[in-house]
Amino acid sequence: MIAELKGIEWREGAFGFIDQTLLPHEERWIWTTDWREIVAAIKRLGIRGAPAIGVSGAFACYLTWEACGGEIDAWNAHAEEIANARPTAVNLVHCVNRVQTVVQKSKNLAEISELLLKEALMIAEEDEKMCLQMAEHGSGLFSKKMRILTHCNTGALVTYGIGTALGVVRRGFEKGLVDHVFACEARPLGQGSRLTMWELEKLGIPATLLCDSAAGRLMQSGSVDCVIVGADRIAANGDTANKVGTLNLAIIANRFGIPFYIAAPSTTFDSNTSSGEAIEVELRSADEVRYCNGQLGTVKGADAFNPAFDVTPADLITAFVCENGVLYPPFKF
Amino acid sequence: MIAELKGIEWREGAFGFIDQTLLPHEERWIWTTDWREIVAAIKRLGIRGAPAIGVSGAFACYLTWEACGGEIDAWNAHAEEIANARPTAVNLVHCVNRVQTVVQKSKNLAEISELLLKEALMIAEEDEKMCLQMAEHGSGLFSKKMRILTHCNTGALVTYGIGTALGVVRRGFEKGLVDHVFACEARPLGQGSRLTMWELEKLGIPATLLCDSAAGRLMQSGSVDCVIVGADRIAANGDTANKVGTLNLAIIANRFGIPFYIAAPSTTFDSNTSSGEAIEVELRSADEVRYCNGQLGTVKGADAFNPAFDVTPADLITAFVCENGVLYPPFKF
Repeated sequence: MIAELKGIEWREGAFGFIDQTLLPHEERWIWTTDWREIVAAIKRLGIRGAPAIGVSGAFACYLTWEACGGEIDAWNAHAEEIANARPTAVNLVHCVNRVQTVVQKSKNLAEISELLLKEALMIAEEDEKMCLQMAEHGSGLFSKKMRILTHCNTGALVTYGIGTALGVVRRGFEKGLVDHVFACEARPLGQGSRLTMWELEKLGIPATLLCDSAAGRLMQSGSVDCVIVGADRIAANGDTANKVGTLNLAIIANRFGIPFYIAAPSTTFDSNTSSGEAIEVELRSADEVRYCNGQLGTVKGADAFNPAFDVTPADLITAFVCENGVLYPPFKF
Repeated sequence: MIAELKGIEWREGAFGFIDQTLLPHEERWIWTTDWREIVAAIKRLGIRGAPAIGVSGAFACYLTWEACGGEIDAWNAHAEEIANARPTAVNLVHCVNRVQTVVQKSKNLAEISELLLKEALMIAEEDEKMCLQMAEHGSGLFSKKMRILTHCNTGALVTYGIGTALGVVRRGFEKGLVDHVFACEARPLGQGSRLTMWELEKLGIPATLLCDSAAGRLMQSGSVDCVIVGADRIAANGDTANKVGTLNLAIIANRFGIPFYIAAPSTTFDSNTSSGEAIEVELRSADEVRYCNGQLGTVKGADAFNPAFDVTPADLITAFVCENGVLYPPFKF
């Protein structure tokens, strides 16, 4: 077993998280019983990644129950505030709804505290288990010592477990089936350079960073056996929204005949969205592109195109890895 | 005619250049008659871009003749030093060789000063003319108001004229055939964000910056009519080495059926190199990837893959634009 690595944890009545805004330069764990500190951390990206935000929200709901002393109206208001900490994370709303249902169904005010903690712990445990199942299925795809290219951050920091795509990599490494990992920077926010490189170093997995612009050359030079990334939303036909830059990698991998895998829990599959064209792509602030590490890198006030995601057409995806197994085309979810 | 823009210039007996290391935050012209200052500027990337370096080297050779007072041995030693200011720029050696031939052929020591200046001015003039011819041929490809994606910096800063690929864009804009320009950052060194965005602003051409990772999404969203970039070396079969990230754009453009053009003077065509596989790609320091705008962006000592170039296979190139016209496949140079 390789090194333990967690990004969030519940221990002895307190909620802990690594402040992701300080990584990789400082690894600071913050332990709290104050739900407002969790909400603030989610808002300022101290905690990020849809599954991690969901689990954190559930624990925040438990902690605010303790703080409210059983005042259901006050608690509901706080739960709403928690659910709205970030607007786009579906997992967060989903997890808050789960704990709200527990409160609604309870007939005994005295038992709610215990039930809320139990539900939050169950959400965390389910997330952890899903990661392990995905990792097992995904690493089953590795027929030899693989050289793997990945994008963005999909590891322990974004789940309660070992991660999605990076969890697959980690399990593969434990099995002796990972030779090397290449991590794209993932400009503009550098989740690859800041977070994935940090996780891989922690885990002792040999890793190399590259600029997003160098992915073509890396694959051209024959150094990559497969690409594996996560997903934010998967449409009914298999079109997949993920961190911007994913589409580039999928198209390039296709050109060089390199398998391209998506690892994501079944909750990411959205049968209500027929295809990628129906997925709205969030456009973020131009400042994220203008600045790098806090320094202006272009002309003042430059216009910038800054989509948070792109959509990879299903025909470029070799297979999906989820907790239930590996899914091959034709995709219809 | 749109705004005048030059990166290097000879005027009233002095050589001037914009210090590119200070762009886009400061636009500082340095005027000098000291050849050592030109060599130092080339070494520290104050002047960069193969054609610009070549022209600068020729003027440096003239200035050192004046400084040497006709001492041919001393001058030759200085000329060698100039030719070696940067190891990989073929243009620099080529231009120094041209002025050396002038000195060798001269029979009258008194006329050499005048001949050297004449040769340097001719090299500059030829470069300027080549740019205009390329721009004319290239802009002839624009059948409507184009939305153009470009990479790295290929404008006035890297030539004595209006540039290669960016010169084509500029001429197209003058003709009313350019609607918008999209510039990729070109990580790790940001020639797109720092230099191309600066040139486009100077020229008043509507421009938008994007991270290299967002090029797929931009082309996917139907916002690009063609891609046009420069080249560092073009093999006999048309395979083209250029700034890392070019290959990504060519593969993505191909996927979306977007024309992909290379603009480069005929001196870039290398019939001695049979194909792209024979082109050696320079690997540069990991620090360029680790740092962005002088700030460490990843774990300390992270390994990084940092190729300066990549090689775009000829089958992905729609056409080459050079001073002699537009060349279509099958390519055989």
